[in-house]
Amino acid sequence: MHIAIIGCGQLSRMLALAGIPMGFKFSFIAEEGEDNRCVDGLGTVVWWRPGTSVRELYEALGRPDRLTVEKEQVDVSLLHALECFCPVHPNPKAFATCQHRHREKQLLDSLEIPCSPYLYGQPSNVSTAEIYLPVVVKSCREGYDGKNQWVLKCQKDIDAFRLQASEEHYIVEKLIPFDIEVSQVSVRSANGEVRHYPLAENHHEQGILKQSVAPAANISESLTLVAQEYICRIMNSLDYVGVMAMECFVVNSQLLINELAPRVHNSGHWTQSGSATCQFENHLRAIAELPLGSTRSSGVTAMVNLIGTEEPPLNSLMAQSSLHWYDKVVRPNRKLGHINIVDENYDSLLKQIDSLHSITNAA
Amino acid sequence: MHIAIIGCGQLSRMLALAGIPMGFKFSFIAEEGEDNRCVDGLGTVVWWRPGTSVRELYEALGRPDRLTVEKEQVDVSLLHALECFCPVHPNPKAFATCQHRHREKQLLDSLEIPCSPYLYGQPSNVSTAEIYLPVVVKSCREGYDGKNQWVLKCQKDIDAFRLQASEEHYIVEKLIPFDIEVSQVSVRSANGEVRHYPLAENHHEQGILKQSVAPAANISESLTLVAQEYICRIMNSLDYVGVMAMECFVVNSQLLINELAPRVHNSGHWTQSGSATCQFENHLRAIAELPLGSTRSSGVTAMVNLIGTEEPPLNSLMAQSSLHWYDKVVRPNRKLGHINIVDENYDSLLKQIDSLHSITNAA
Repeated sequence: MHIAIIGCGQLSRMLALAGIPMGFKFSFIAEEGEDNRCVDGLGTVVWWRPGTSVRELYEALGRPDRLTVEKEQVDVSLLHALECFCPVHPNPKAFATCQHRHREKQLLDSLEIPCSPYLYGQPSNVSTAEIYLPVVVKSCREGYDGKNQWVLKCQKDIDAFRLQASEEHYIVEKLIPFDIEVSQVSVRSANGEVRHYPLAENHHEQGILKQSVAPAANISESLTLVAQEYICRIMNSLDYVGVMAMECFVVNSQLLINELAPRVHNSGHWTQSGSATCQFENHLRAIAELPLGSTRSSGVTAMVNLIGTEEPPLNSLMAQSSLHWYDKVVRPNRKLGHINIVDENYDSLLKQIDSLHSITNAA
Repeated sequence: MHIAIIGCGQLSRMLALAGIPMGFKFSFIAEEGEDNRCVDGLGTVVWWRPGTSVRELYEALGRPDRLTVEKEQVDVSLLHALECFCPVHPNPKAFATCQHRHREKQLLDSLEIPCSPYLYGQPSNVSTAEIYLPVVVKSCREGYDGKNQWVLKCQKDIDAFRLQASEEHYIVEKLIPFDIEVSQVSVRSANGEVRHYPLAENHHEQGILKQSVAPAANISESLTLVAQEYICRIMNSLDYVGVMAMECFVVNSQLLINELAPRVHNSGHWTQSGSATCQFENHLRAIAELPLGSTRSSGVTAMVNLIGTEEPPLNSLMAQSSLHWYDKVVRPNRKLGHINIVDENYDSLLKQIDSLHSITNAA
C-alpha cells in the first residue's frame, strides 16, 4: 500500500510513522519553499510546481494507491485532477467546504448543527445591528493558530480593522464567552463505519493550541452523544473517509461548532498514548479501506505542545510521558513537538503537567 | 541523540521506529550479505568489513552518541574497540556471556540461579551417567529458532549426532518436560533503576516462537517476583544497561532459566500494544540515559508471529489488532512480521487469535 500525502509537516510525518510499521510506503507533495525536514527519510518528496502535468506528478510520486492531505488549504482542482489516477480521501468536496469558513457555516446551517451567530460580508459591514459588538472577524481562508482573526470590541477596533482589511469578504461572528473548548475527533471508513475518540478539552495561548486533555473532564454523557451525532451527520453528508476533527465551544452545556478540520488534528495527538489506535493509524486504515482500529481509551491523557522549544526536551521525559519531536526548522511560536502524558486520574495528571512546565520552562 | 545499531533486522527497524518520534537519528552496521531492507530509509547503513579501522567505521556511521546491538552473535572485540569512541550498551561483557551457552550457564551457576542440569563436553561424552537420556544437545553459539539443537532420545540418536557433530564442545542438557515457557523482559538504566514487564507465555512451532501472551495466565505473584529477582541479579552482576529477555521453563511451579538474550526480544513485541512504553522505546531510553518509561500493562495482549507469510495480511486486521511488517526478503520459515491483539480477558483474546489464524491460513 503506497500512500501519497500533500504536505510535508508534522502531520505527514506522524502519518508515515504510523504507517511504516504496517509495511506502507509513503511519498509527499511539497510546495516551493515548504520545509520538508519533517519527512526526511520517510519517503520520496516531489516538488509541485503549478503547470506540471498531473500525470507527471502521479508518476513522480511512484503511482500511489491512495492520496491524502495534511492541510485544509489545498488546491481543490489538483485533488480533482488526481482523482483520475487514484482514490483521494477525504474527497475534494470535503476540502472545498472546510477550507472556506462561509461554505463550512453553510454546511452546518443546512445540517441544522449550531454554530456561533455570524454574518458573511464585506469589511464595510463588519458591525451591524444583527450582531452586536464584541465580534470576532475571520478571513474565509488560512485561519489557523489565531492567524487572520481580529477581535473587535469598540468602534476604534472596527476602524483599525477596516483600514488594513485586504480581502473582499469576511465572516463576522458573535464573540462567544464559552465555558470550555472541546474537540471531537472521529474516523469514518469507506463503508460508513464511524468510530469516535472521547472529547478532548483544549487550552490555547495567544491563539495557539497549548494543551489538550482527554477525555475532557465534567462532560455529560448526553453532550458526548450530541457531539458524536453532529460529526456523524457532517461526515455522512460529505461521504467523508478518514479522520475529521470538530472544534466546539461548550456554552451553558450546549455545543456550538467553531470549525471543522478535514484531517488528523493537533487536538487528537493524545491518542498516540491514550488510545488503543492513534488517529494517524486510523486515518490510514480508513483511506486504505481496512477495518478501523479500536478507539478505546484508558486513564486520562494530556498532550502539551512544545512551542518555540529549540531542542528536544529529552530530560523532561517522565515514566508516564512520551516525546514526539518534529525535526522542523526552529522558529519562535512554531509547534516543534509535543509531549503526551498518561495518568490514572485528573489530579495526578495535572500535577504531572505542572512539573513538566517547570522543567521545560527552566530548560 | 544519534544511535548506531549493529544489525539491520527487524529489531533494528523497530528500535528506529520507536526512536524517530523522539527526534533520535540512527545508523546501522551491516555485515557483508546481510539483508538491510528492514531499515531502508531509517538511517545510514555502513557495511563492515573486518580489516577496516574502527575509527573509519565510527566516522562512517556519523559519530554516533551511543552504540547498541540487535543480536547476540556480535564480534565482542569490535564492541571493545568501539567503546573507545562512544558508550556501548549493553556492554561487551554481556554479549561475551550471553552469546556462549557455557559462559551463560556459568554465570547462572555463580549467581545461584537454577537452570536445567547440564554438562559441557565433547561429542564423545554427550551421554553420561550423570545426565540420562533424553537430552538436548546445543551448540555453544548460534542457537536461535531451534537451530543447532538436537534432541537425543536413544542410542541411535546419539550415534547419528556424533557422526555429524562438527564443533569441539557442546552443552548437553537434561530434556525437561516443562509445564509452560515464559519470558521475563526487563530494562535497566545506567543508574541501576530496573523496570519489569509482566511475564509472557510463549508457544513455539518447530522451534520457532509462534505466539506470546502477556501477562502469562495462571502465574502466581510469588513466581513473578522470583523471575524479577533473578533478572535483577543477572543485570546487576553484568552492570547491564538496556532491555534483557530471560526465557524460563516453568516446572512444578519453579523457574528454570533456559536462556538469556542481551537485547530486545521477540517475546517482548506485545509491549508495542499492551504496555505504556514498548520495549524498544525503553531500550533507547536506557541507553540514552533518559528516565525509563512506565511498563504498566492493561488488559491482555497476544503477539502472533507471521512466519513465511508472503504479503502483509492487511485484511486480517481487526479493531483490536495491529500489524507490524518487517519488509524483509520473503523466505519459508522466516519471521516476516507480527500481529499484536489486545483484549479485556483471556477467553475473548483466544477467540480473536483463533479467528486470526483462520483468516491468515485461508489467505
